[in-house]
Order: sequence, then C-alpha cells, then structure tokens
Amino acid sequence: MIDHCVNGFRAAGIAAGIKPNGEKDMGLIFSETPANVAGVFTRNQIQAAPVVLDRDRISSGVSQAVIVNSGIANCCTGEQGMQDAVAMTRVTAEHLDLNSDRVLVSSTGVIGTRLPMEMIEIAIPRLVAEARPDGFIDFAEAIMTTDTVPKLVTRRSVLNGTPFTVTGTAKGAGMIHPDMATMLAFICTDAGATAGELQSILKTGVERSLNRITIDGDTSTNDTTLLLANGRSGAILRTEKDRELLRETVHEVMEMLARLLVKDGEGATKLVTITVKGAPSRQSAHTVADTVAKSALVKTALFGEDANWGRIVAAVGRAGVPIEPDQIKVFFDDVLVFTNGGGVDEVGEERITNVLKQPEYTITIDLGLGLSQVTVLTCDLSVDYIRINADYRT
Amino acid sequence: MIDHCVNGFRAAGIAAGIKPNGEKDMGLIFSETPANVAGVFTRNQIQAAPVVLDRDRISSGVSQAVIVNSGIANCCTGEQGMQDAVAMTRVTAEHLDLNSDRVLVSSTGVIGTRLPMEMIEIAIPRLVAEARPDGFIDFAEAIMTTDTVPKLVTRRSVLNGTPFTVTGTAKGAGMIHPDMATMLAFICTDAGATAGELQSILKTGVERSLNRITIDGDTSTNDTTLLLANGRSGAILRTEKDRELLRETVHEVMEMLARLLVKDGEGATKLVTITVKGAPSRQSAHTVADTVAKSALVKTALFGEDANWGRIVAAVGRAGVPIEPDQIKVFFDDVLVFTNGGGVDEVGEERITNVLKQPEYTITIDLGLGLSQVTVLTCDLSVDYIRINADYRT
Repeated sequence: MIDHCVNGFRAAGIAAGIKPNGEKDMGLIFSETPANVAGVFTRNQIQAAPVVLDRDRISSGVSQAVIVNSGIANCCTGEQGMQDAVAMTRVTAEHLDLNSDRVLVSSTGVIGTRLPMEMIEIAIPRLVAEARPDGFIDFAEAIMTTDTVPKLVTRRSVLNGTPFTVTGTAKGAGMIHPDMATMLAFICTDAGATAGELQSILKTGVERSLNRITIDGDTSTNDTTLLLANGRSGAILRTEKDRELLRETVHEVMEMLARLLVKDGEGATKLVTITVKGAPSRQSAHTVADTVAKSALVKTALFGEDANWGRIVAAVGRAGVPIEPDQIKVFFDDVLVFTNGGGVDEVGEERITNVLKQPEYTITIDLGLGLSQVTVLTCDLSVDYIRINADYRT
Repeated sequence: MIDHCVNGFRAAGIAAGIKPNGEKDMGLIFSETPANVAGVFTRNQIQAAPVVLDRDRISSGVSQAVIVNSGIANCCTGEQGMQDAVAMTRVTAEHLDLNSDRVLVSSTGVIGTRLPMEMIEIAIPRLVAEARPDGFIDFAEAIMTTDTVPKLVTRRSVLNGTPFTVTGTAKGAGMIHPDMATMLAFICTDAGATAGELQSILKTGVERSLNRITIDGDTSTNDTTLLLANGRSGAILRTEKDRELLRETVHEVMEMLARLLVKDGEGATKLVTITVKGAPSRQSAHTVADTVAKSALVKTALFGEDANWGRIVAAVGRAGVPIEPDQIKVFFDDVLVFTNGGGVDEVGEERITNVLKQPEYTITIDLGLGLSQVTVLTCDLSVDYIRINADYRT
C-alpha cells in the first residue's frame, strides 16, 4: 500500500450531507505549521466566490488549510455566496485556531445553488477532528463529482541528502466536456520553497500537465490548482539545481494527475497521446494538437478502433494553422498511415488495428514544416450514441 | 404534394452501388440550357478533389450540370482522385453532350478511399436517362449520408409580373459534430441573374443560414454550396429591387435548409434558437452565441429539459469576449431566469419547464453592453450517453 503521508500535513474527507446520495462531499487539508502557497485559477470571466476569495488570499504567499466541498459550486450566488465562502474559512480557522486569511476554500458542483451552511458548519469540526497524516485518500474521495475513482499521486525524492515528499490529489474534468466539471488539484510538499518559487513551479507545471488536457483553454467557473510547501522535511531549496529537482518532482505528480483525469474521462476506454511535431512554432503545434484531441469525430474513431486517419487529417486542416498537406505524416504508434497526401496502402489494416486495440497508444502528426513539438492527452468517446459515428465507415 | 420543379432543370437520384446497403448514392442535376453559377466552398486547408475542381470551373460563371456521389468523399486521394473527379464530369458531359468544363462535381462520405469508377461510369448514363423535372426528391435522397430525411425546399415569387422558382436541396452536418459530415447544398432557380449577382446572393445567404449552424467556422474537406440560375422563367433582374427580391427568396430557401439540417442533427429532439443581444459588436455577439450553441454541456441540459442556466452563463464567461456578469440577462422564451449575477428565484420551475418541454424555443442572452445582435440555431444532444450529464444536477 502506498503511503501518501507528507510531513506536517493532515487530511480528511467525510459525508456532510450536501450530496443527496450520502457520498463523501467535504474535505480538509491542513499543515500543522504555516506553508508557503501558490495558486493557478480559472480564466473564465464568471468566477465562483471561492476562486475570488482564494486569489486574493494567496497574494500573502502563506496559507495553512484548504476546506473543500463537492456537490455545489457556490457560483452565481452573489453577495451571499461570498459570505458563505468566507464563513467556510472562518469556521475552519476557528476550529484549527488560525487566522481566517490563512484558510483557502474550493467548491465544485452545480452552479447557482446556495451552500447548505448549517450542514457545512456541523461538518467542519468533524473534519478537523478526523484529519490524519494518512487522510489524503479520504480527501481525494470527498472532492469527486462525476469522477469514478479518486486521484492521488505521491512522489519522493532526496534533496542534498534530505528526503522530501510531494503528494497531489485532483478531480476531473470529464474529457468529453472540458467545460463541464470543475478541475480541482491540490499539491502538498514538505520541501521548503518560497511562494515565488512555488508559483513558478506551479505555473509551468499547469502548462505542461493540466492545461494539456483541458484542451483549448476552456475553464470552468471554479477551476483551482493550489501548491503548498511547509518545509517540514528539512529539504530546503538553495541552488538552481535544488529548484529544478523540486520542479521536476512536482511536475511528475501533476503529469500523473493529468493522466488519471484523462483516464477517468466519462466512459473512456482509451488513453491516447497526441504528439504534433515538425511545426513552425510551439503555438501552432499546440493548436493542431488541441484541434485533433478535442475533435468528437476523431474521438469516436478511437473508440471504434477505426483507422480513420481521414478524420485526423481533416481536423489538422481546419485547425487554422498554415499547413502543407503533402508534407504531413501521420503515425499510429510507429506505423505510418498517411504520407504524400494520401493513405499508405501497403500497411495492412491488421497492423494498424493492433495499435488501435491497445488501451494506450500514441498518434504522431508530423507537419514537416519546422522543429517545434507539443504533446497532449485525450481519451476516446466510448459511449453508446457514439456508435453512430464509430460505424460511419462500415 | 409540393411541386419542386424549376423551369428548364431536371434531376435524378439512383443507387449506383457505392453504398454497401443499396441506398441511393448518385445524383444529377442539369439545366437544359446554360446557367449562371456561383459557389461557396470549405475553408478547410485539406480539400477534396471535387472542391478544387469546382472552385476552378465556376470562375467561368457558367455551368450546366452537377454530378454528385455519396458514400465516398474522394478526399486525400491524390492525383488519382483528381483524375476520378475529372472523369465523373467528362462522362456526364459526354452523355449530356456538353463540354466537360460546364459540369461540376461533389462527393461526400469517407475520406481516403478511391471512388469505384466502374460503377460510377455505368450509373451516369442511367442518371441522364432518368433525369426528370420532378426528380429533385430523388436527388435529395441520393446525397444523404448520416441524414435521416431528405432536405428539399421550394419557394416561388413573382418578379415584375413573371413568376419564378427557387428550389434548394442539402445534406447535413450532424450538429453534434460540425466537422463531421460534409455539408452540401444545391440551389436552382429559373430566374435570370449574372454570376456576380448570384455570388453576392450566395455569399450573404451562407453567412445568414448555413454558417449559422456550422457554429464556429469548422468546415469539412468537401463542404460545397452551389447556386445555379438559368433564366428560363423569363424573370430577369433589372433593378436593385429585383435583386433584393431574388436575394430574399434564395435566402428564405437557404434558411429553411439550415433549419432542416439542424432538426436532423443526430438524435436531435429540440430545435433551439440562441439569440445574443446587447453585445458591443456583431463579432462578439457571434462568438458568444457560437460558444453557447456548441457547448456539449448546454446541449445536454436542453435534452434533459433542465433549467440549468449556470451552464449557459459559464459558456458565456469562457467565450473570450469581455462581459459584465452583473449586466447579463438570460431568458428561456420570454421567461427571465438569470439577472443581477444570479438566478431568478421567484420564477417557478414549472414556468421554465413548460418552455423547455417544447420542441422549439428560444434562449436569449442579453449582455447589456451594446446594440449588436446575432441569432444561431442549435439542437440538443439527446443520445443515451448524454444522460450522464443531463442528470448531473439531480
């Protein structure tokens, strides 16, 4: 059994009664001592009250607790919604004997409904009482909405002889609808780093992981990613090399979380890596990769295990990036299926189908125009109605 | 029974054997005398051979026949594909005793497969022999792919005492996947107009009708809209007022075709008009309308008859257009459901549900920022997997 403990952190998750089905719906993470903090939030112009509150509070660079509920997003709830978000942090702070401004809050669920504050205020002391070093798995369960499995990842490394831990938990983001579910991610480390160092690590990490699966910059009203570092391992960043080691470890956790989010896309049966290379710029590579990765038609073909490279090429052609059709090559894993403006006839359907039958594989699109490369993750559209499209070719 | 005859035009549709299920898959329209012609084509950079050929040929402004096959798109078929497209027009021209460059060609279906030219060459003389003034319905059936019903619209009007007819036929465009099926539309009139007049009418008509349903400018590799006018009614454009009358009549046909395409979106049960008003510019109104209209999450709520205005507001917020959340109003038909940054509690769920239960209704989003307005059409996502999202709130 994996140990998800991080020195000085405790976590809990319980059923507060917000979800009618009685599942866990409130979670708490706190550090026994103040932690430095960084955050990345939704770019949606409609922002839930907790996002507005957190964005303000992390400007201090210090935080000690995060209180989270699932089931209700506390978004489009006006002045009352902000009062409720503040009250969640105030009650949490009281029971942890902290200042309110050291507490952050996240909500995820239905928009436009008020939080049941009575239930929440009863639940918070229970969360505080139940919080344990090994409570991250309960927290991970408590933040789920349409997720089918909790997502929890831990990586350990050694900094100048001192071991440290990074533990992250997240909730989806059904890949079918990047705008659908709120994406929440919380990453805790016992390494020591300044708020500025954390913000740099988090920002580049989001760019390389979670933003590679939200596809086109669509963000929900509540998307939040927080990184807390309490330094309790004694592993403190001193040199650029130290910073690089923490960055790599945090990014590894974030990339694993991103993979778990895609794998748990609603009904997903395939985890497909889309690599666009030979692009004239990273931006154009990203645009092409995103267009292919979010094409419902491509995704239905992935589900149908259908070697329908025409849909991939058509998505490339409408991405809005200048291309040379005759320069494009498309590979399923290492099998070349499209080149010189047409299909590769001599590749047997069987070889291609063997790739497409795998639960995980890579589609590589070489634009043949430059040196830039980008990789994104996507899943198939596996659900019944998709059969209409998956069978289109037969 | 509606009479879809247009003076001097004949049409036919037959099963040539391209579709394995034996359904009609080849169609022909021709004018007994030369017609002036205009065309609007896909903006996808990957273009099927018939699109490349037609774009070149309509530059002459004169055409007399259109040969179409469904089942295979003749796209990404290289030099051979262009030879096949040219051959389709050559064989058609021979049997109609025309020059090849007077014949246009369209294909729709699977990308990357060669046309079965033997079948096609056998079918063409049959099409020529079977072509009749009342053959448009057969043609409309022959161009279908995932469409469930043929789309055929006729409007008649009188120009300076002379009656004229406009008949249009189209194939979808499953609304679920704007990039999925090729959209083909063919409009014939016996009014007389120059190629320049036709191009102006067609371009503005596409902008107001077919481009309002392809949502975000996504176009397939084969999208084609052609307008032919043979002047055989004797109704000839002379004044600006005449041009306006033909423009209106053609646009009415195109708007009807657009509605039919949306109504036949895969599995659609609702035809929903999305009007964005109070926008600072038409461009921003269009962007917001498109973002809402193509949001899978909004569309699942429409199917679920779920008054989930939060999803609409969240889509508005991520459209990338500056907004003032507190200025936004959202109406279901004339029922105000969102204002001042939150839901309208005093509206009973029943009043809202009565709107949402209708097969056709309007969602109006007033941004409260300006005077520009745009209307687009969308449909719900009704298929089974959608229940996951439709039930998300309950």
